[in-house]
Amino acid sequence: MTALYELGAARAARMIARGHLTAEAFASACLERIAARDPDVRAWVARDADLVLAQARASDRSPARGPLHGVPVGVKDVIDTADLPTEYNSPIYRGHQPKADAACVALIKRAGGIVLGKTATTEFAYQHPGPARNPRNLGHTPGGSSSGSAAAVADGMVPLALGTQTGGSVIRPASFCGIVGYKPSFGTVNRAGMKFLAESLDTVGMMGRAVEDVALLVHALAGVALPDLESKPPRAPRVGLCRTPRWNEAHEVTRSLIERAANSLERAGAQLTDFDYGPELAGIYDDHEVIMHHECARALEWEYANKRELLSASIIGHIEKGWTIPRARYEEAMLNGMCYRARIREVFASCDFLLTPSAPGEAPQGLANTGNSVFNRTWTFLGVPCVTLPLFTSPAGLPVGIQIVGPYMGDTRTLRWAEWVRQVLG
Amino acid sequence: MTALYELGAARAARMIARGHLTAEAFASACLERIAARDPDVRAWVARDADLVLAQARASDRSPARGPLHGVPVGVKDVIDTADLPTEYNSPIYRGHQPKADAACVALIKRAGGIVLGKTATTEFAYQHPGPARNPRNLGHTPGGSSSGSAAAVADGMVPLALGTQTGGSVIRPASFCGIVGYKPSFGTVNRAGMKFLAESLDTVGMMGRAVEDVALLVHALAGVALPDLESKPPRAPRVGLCRTPRWNEAHEVTRSLIERAANSLERAGAQLTDFDYGPELAGIYDDHEVIMHHECARALEWEYANKRELLSASIIGHIEKGWTIPRARYEEAMLNGMCYRARIREVFASCDFLLTPSAPGEAPQGLANTGNSVFNRTWTFLGVPCVTLPLFTSPAGLPVGIQIVGPYMGDTRTLRWAEWVRQVLG
Repeated sequence: MTALYELGAARAARMIARGHLTAEAFASACLERIAARDPDVRAWVARDADLVLAQARASDRSPARGPLHGVPVGVKDVIDTADLPTEYNSPIYRGHQPKADAACVALIKRAGGIVLGKTATTEFAYQHPGPARNPRNLGHTPGGSSSGSAAAVADGMVPLALGTQTGGSVIRPASFCGIVGYKPSFGTVNRAGMKFLAESLDTVGMMGRAVEDVALLVHALAGVALPDLESKPPRAPRVGLCRTPRWNEAHEVTRSLIERAANSLERAGAQLTDFDYGPELAGIYDDHEVIMHHECARALEWEYANKRELLSASIIGHIEKGWTIPRARYEEAMLNGMCYRARIREVFASCDFLLTPSAPGEAPQGLANTGNSVFNRTWTFLGVPCVTLPLFTSPAGLPVGIQIVGPYMGDTRTLRWAEWVRQVLG
Repeated sequence: MTALYELGAARAARMIARGHLTAEAFASACLERIAARDPDVRAWVARDADLVLAQARASDRSPARGPLHGVPVGVKDVIDTADLPTEYNSPIYRGHQPKADAACVALIKRAGGIVLGKTATTEFAYQHPGPARNPRNLGHTPGGSSSGSAAAVADGMVPLALGTQTGGSVIRPASFCGIVGYKPSFGTVNRAGMKFLAESLDTVGMMGRAVEDVALLVHALAGVALPDLESKPPRAPRVGLCRTPRWNEAHEVTRSLIERAANSLERAGAQLTDFDYGPELAGIYDDHEVIMHHECARALEWEYANKRELLSASIIGHIEKGWTIPRARYEEAMLNGMCYRARIREVFASCDFLLTPSAPGEAPQGLANTGNSVFNRTWTFLGVPCVTLPLFTSPAGLPVGIQIVGPYMGDTRTLRWAEWVRQVLG
């Protein structure tokens, strides 16, 4: 039998709506799981259990407010909350209490959801790690930067959590922890009240344990239409197998899993083609890096000028690199971005989704390095929706995800195809 | 003789750099002007004169830090400041003290500039007016939403100020107050730490009394190359006269001033063509409105859910309208935006800049209505740079601006052509 804390968000929402489960019982189960496991996993940096239970009881007394009624959600600690501190994993912001909720937090509440607490992040959502560990193996990183969100969802401490992605900060940790990660089309979830790292790239994303759960969350927060995950798609998809120009950075096991997955989809009826970046997308890695560094240096100028002694060496290096990039190079990267987006739009005219690695391989050992975002940056820059599915296991027994990438603003369809892939390969 | 407070920013910066003026003397002149005039104009909502003078004296003791060394700048009160309250002209935020400076404020300081204080804004940079009056005629609005920034610069209280534009909130008040307003290409000045109204549109802009002054500010904040305003352009420009589909909303006097200006530019050698929106841009007004309302409703959800009794009726209406727009309509508007930007890029392949009204006419009478942004929304949505020049006067003696619009990321060239237009028409 499934323990209560293991319930998926969509199923829990249905049970609560039908009176088969109380929000209080579900929240209590999550809080108990946290009490039992978080001393090891360290996914949470701020919680108020009394507030959570009071909100859950209030949910149980009131009519359903929205699609998340009574469902707990974790919130990455780069997103402002009015009733919990928000520290960005920086000693500069120790105990910092924002005045207002970020838009995405207020929208969780509007939809009836309950903020269970704040989850550990790397410093300002860049590389310097937070305390969280990978619940699949505590000696390994959960990935970053949405480390605590991925670890908490994977460990059954919360059915849903928000992350953010500038390079690969949602898809990579979700892949490392063995859950579903989803980065919507750029701008889908309103960003007011999140701490910016690089505003042209920063995207609010979500984690859950099933496609239907992340689909529910983006529906609740942004009104994205729910995909029909029940009925069979009217036709098999046209799939682009995307090895990317950095295929040699994928581990042997990842490369063979992706190739085998592509073959399995083909056997299930998919029309398979190879998608190469070609000369049109050749500059995309460099341009992503230029934009990330250039914007980060400006976004964190107050911290750099006034509190440098409290910044990590890694983010200082990132900021200082940003200051070496001439404005003209940044403008070139931004203009190239318009061309890349036009190019990928053409690609999706003849292809339903791309199949590509979520990460080079399993979560690296140790907590110092949150892993490599090489298989994520392109999609963040293009602003297209991506879903990672926890379908594989490495020889060492750690999760390895597979990534589905769809067209800009084609989130509902992309989630639908992701579920199809899961059913075929799962 | 020019009073000290009337000095332009670029000239003051040169004088300070050469030791012909102290930052303290210049800041003192500005503060005295404020003391004399602000009881009438009401442009400022937060200042700390002691802090300003201390910073000015510190500037005078230290070597030049950057291109704004010793130059005072006003900051619109939707932009966070660590040493002054930030209230967004909302009673919800009375006395609100952010922890950190917004990126653009920290960048003013990095460039050696001195934040003179916070300037009045409409509520959350939307329509509900703040206290500021038009210094050219106190019975008229200064325009909005960057009301105090425009009024303060126009009245000689500060040589430069930051504003923000989502519809027409920089160009319109600059036109109404008779100064130079400049909205750079979308994303030019980093937005971390500003209060979002509609994140796909919100743009940090600037006001000054000459093109060289706003050019200096964008150079200091974003590294945009300084235009060469001294030498003659190597050729006369190709100019598109853009009446827009809303030409009938321009006052008679505006229409005739723009037509005459176009003729004068042609006589000065410009190659003049008519630029019509055509079917490709026909939906741009509706789509801008959809995006603004949709995003605003989400961005202000915390305030709406928790402090509705402290919101103005106008912003409540705006938010509630935003909630009536289906997600699919918003997605359509965002996708259309990509097409509009591709179209305007083509236009600028054969045209150096567009000439178009800055506003329907002079500043409306009274303070209740900050005026109409119909001649600004297109350019904000397209993300292209615009400059308004204070070249005309209405029959009632109020300023009427003229707007120069250039290509995305072509800010330096656009500022150069704006100065050429000023010289030809001025």
